[in-house]
Amino acid sequence: MTTTSTFVKMVFDRWNATLNNFDTLLNDLSDETLQKEVAPGKNRGIYLLGHLIAVHDDMLKLLNMGEKLYPELYEPFLNSPDKTTTQIPSIADLRIFWNSQCAILKQKCDSLQADEWFKKHTAVNAEDFAKEPHRNKLNIIITRTTHLTYHTGQLRLLK
Amino acid sequence: MTTTSTFVKMVFDRWNATLNNFDTLLNDLSDETLQKEVAPGKNRGIYLLGHLIAVHDDMLKLLNMGEKLYPELYEPFLNSPDKTTTQIPSIADLRIFWNSQCAILKQKCDSLQADEWFKKHTAVNAEDFAKEPHRNKLNIIITRTTHLTYHTGQLRLLK
Repeated sequence: MTTTSTFVKMVFDRWNATLNNFDTLLNDLSDETLQKEVAPGKNRGIYLLGHLIAVHDDMLKLLNMGEKLYPELYEPFLNSPDKTTTQIPSIADLRIFWNSQCAILKQKCDSLQADEWFKKHTAVNAEDFAKEPHRNKLNIIITRTTHLTYHTGQLRLLK
Repeated sequence: MTTTSTFVKMVFDRWNATLNNFDTLLNDLSDETLQKEVAPGKNRGIYLLGHLIAVHDDMLKLLNMGEKLYPELYEPFLNSPDKTTTQIPSIADLRIFWNSQCAILKQKCDSLQADEWFKKHTAVNAEDFAKEPHRNKLNIIITRTTHLTYHTGQLRLLK
């Protein structure tokens, strides 16, 4: 195994384990529980779920893997704090979006060769990337893994 | 910059940013606030702080960087759930331990060359490592970064 594919495996092992942990937790929480705040006055479970789908939708663009699947989630779950809009999908729908998005993202990620992960993502230009080669697609997976664990830690409090 | 050092930089950028985020948050929380539970019936801030120090102490051993600095934290913060023992250090002491440990860990990590991070950690034997080269020292940094973000997300609820 080349060093490059070892790196990619290390990063994806963590990303996939983190997604699996989140999935297990999500399946353990009822729709009723997800309506609750993770702590008094803080975000509700439903908001964290919608927020994660909105953030992962943006990964598709950053990784040059196509358009967002659920652009309508940007406004309620990224641009607005929780409990400021009532125009949000049901938890049942968000669960379907989450599972579908995970499957599509996985399929697209699996199709990339190891060295393609060291090419630039779409939010950095070629000139900056020449000087800062760490701003590559794999780094998007690294940063979104920590984002996901941050909110998994919070959602876990509903259990 | 070689691919190896780019990768090490990607991992350490995330680890250092995560430590900085935690530090900023910790400095924002008073000793009184850290005595509170992050959500009703859940771990207190003081427990999460002690738990992180205990886990990072173990990194020193896994990375072959020497012995634990605070072995007395294993029992109350790793082996026991919160609120089951009263024999724990004060928050003032834990803050000192945290800062001191961060400085020592940083100094030791900075002294390693990029390729040394791809050597095996101490919890895997040479035979297994030959087949599973991803079980290297750098992977310890990756997994502890997600562990730290998980608990940072929880501690953030005290703000």
